[in-house]
Amino acid sequence: MNVQGFFKKLKKKKTELCVGLDTDVNKLPDHLPKNAEGFLQFNKEIIEATSEFAVSYKINTAFYESMGKVGWDLLFKTREMLPSNTFNIADAKRGDIGNTSSMYAKAFFKEMDFDALTVAPYMGEDSIAPFLEYKDKVTIVLGLTSNKGSANFQTHPEYNPPLYQTVLSTVKDWGNPDQLMFVIGATKAEKLKEIRGIIPEHFLLVPGVGAQGGSATEVCKHGLNSSGGLLINSSRGIIYASAGKDFAQKAADAAAELSSEMAPYVNKVLP
Amino acid sequence: MNVQGFFKKLKKKKTELCVGLDTDVNKLPDHLPKNAEGFLQFNKEIIEATSEFAVSYKINTAFYESMGKVGWDLLFKTREMLPSNTFNIADAKRGDIGNTSSMYAKAFFKEMDFDALTVAPYMGEDSIAPFLEYKDKVTIVLGLTSNKGSANFQTHPEYNPPLYQTVLSTVKDWGNPDQLMFVIGATKAEKLKEIRGIIPEHFLLVPGVGAQGGSATEVCKHGLNSSGGLLINSSRGIIYASAGKDFAQKAADAAAELSSEMAPYVNKVLP
Repeated sequence: MNVQGFFKKLKKKKTELCVGLDTDVNKLPDHLPKNAEGFLQFNKEIIEATSEFAVSYKINTAFYESMGKVGWDLLFKTREMLPSNTFNIADAKRGDIGNTSSMYAKAFFKEMDFDALTVAPYMGEDSIAPFLEYKDKVTIVLGLTSNKGSANFQTHPEYNPPLYQTVLSTVKDWGNPDQLMFVIGATKAEKLKEIRGIIPEHFLLVPGVGAQGGSATEVCKHGLNSSGGLLINSSRGIIYASAGKDFAQKAADAAAELSSEMAPYVNKVLP
Repeated sequence: MNVQGFFKKLKKKKTELCVGLDTDVNKLPDHLPKNAEGFLQFNKEIIEATSEFAVSYKINTAFYESMGKVGWDLLFKTREMLPSNTFNIADAKRGDIGNTSSMYAKAFFKEMDFDALTVAPYMGEDSIAPFLEYKDKVTIVLGLTSNKGSANFQTHPEYNPPLYQTVLSTVKDWGNPDQLMFVIGATKAEKLKEIRGIIPEHFLLVPGVGAQGGSATEVCKHGLNSSGGLLINSSRGIIYASAGKDFAQKAADAAAELSSEMAPYVNKVLP
């Protein structure tokens, strides 16, 4: 599925919510076993409970890899649980020289059939081109991230224009907006106006709402374009809304609430 | 094992050669089956044949992930094959916000017990700190990479000092040289003198010799310091030296040849 395909789902579902499956075995609800079985049971119930309110899921590969030998199996099994009517992202932040990026592209786009993959820009064009060869998939390149460390290089004070702007203005020419999205952290909502000046058309994947302190309302105010143009992710705020037996219901409630927060903005641009 | 531990092995083995296990199932020798079994048989024979000439192995995770469901199993099994007297690197170029980097650190340092992991710097300090919490492990941060795309951002003409120099001079203060190494591509040997001005003490992991066009002699001439300070990787030039039944012997020959090319320089600084 490329961005056009995602946009069709967005128009139908009328929400820009992406639920992040950052499943941590140590944070499972008390009644679930702290093992691979509990991990999958948790994901299954979270997905079933939230799918009504989300247009997308984002699997954070690190949490699966940290499970050791069974990690990759958990990743494949969770991928298989994702609905076919959502835009399904592997948040893996891969990127390497060309022949190696080709292998990552094969892993996530072909073997696991994700719709999209997050990619790091540091190594430049030939590190990203192999992902863009998959015309029906979406490559999501890091622009301005939500964390404090984004100040070290992305907004380094000696560089003008800032590095993240150079990344956006350079990478946007490597693929069309049907194949290419950018990560822009919700904690940087005040930068969204100048970011829209550089990439008016592209969809942005916006993490950092909730646990990281970003606001969905602020993101919508400054980041929406005529196609919506936003996919707002929340992970911890939704999946760990309760540690009790009601975790799935509470996750659904949190997803519904975040989705309603965006609704007025989404309805304005996509009536 | 931290850099001190690696240095002890280096003094004993008197070679700075790292063999890169970029195992591609489609490039296995003709007589091996093009499946997981052939993949592992290939790695086993390559490791046995080259271990005499190498002080380090580097597993390129992308090639394992591209194998689909069995990929992670191949990664664990190959990790288990690596000698205990070599410095064993996961070349995975990970990096994300703090809680996620912690999970990658657990995966590679704890679950797989690699000695070192390559990490991308774009997301800054809190994306790298969780790796540095493992004091007995080595975090290898991308500095100046060997590929053409390094010109897009790492040596972007508008930025002075260039981004890769800002990365080196900033990241070097986040950990001591016992925990921290940098990736500097062999194709950029002419830059090694100024790089040594910024990070005189750190070990450099230098890929790009052979298939990518870099020269081990040039790297040694410009990059050595009083501890050696270099770990020179060759992948394709060694492991695919022959597609015949003699592939392991030819790999050993290629490893021996590259190691001898470095020997005069290594012997000069580590008599």
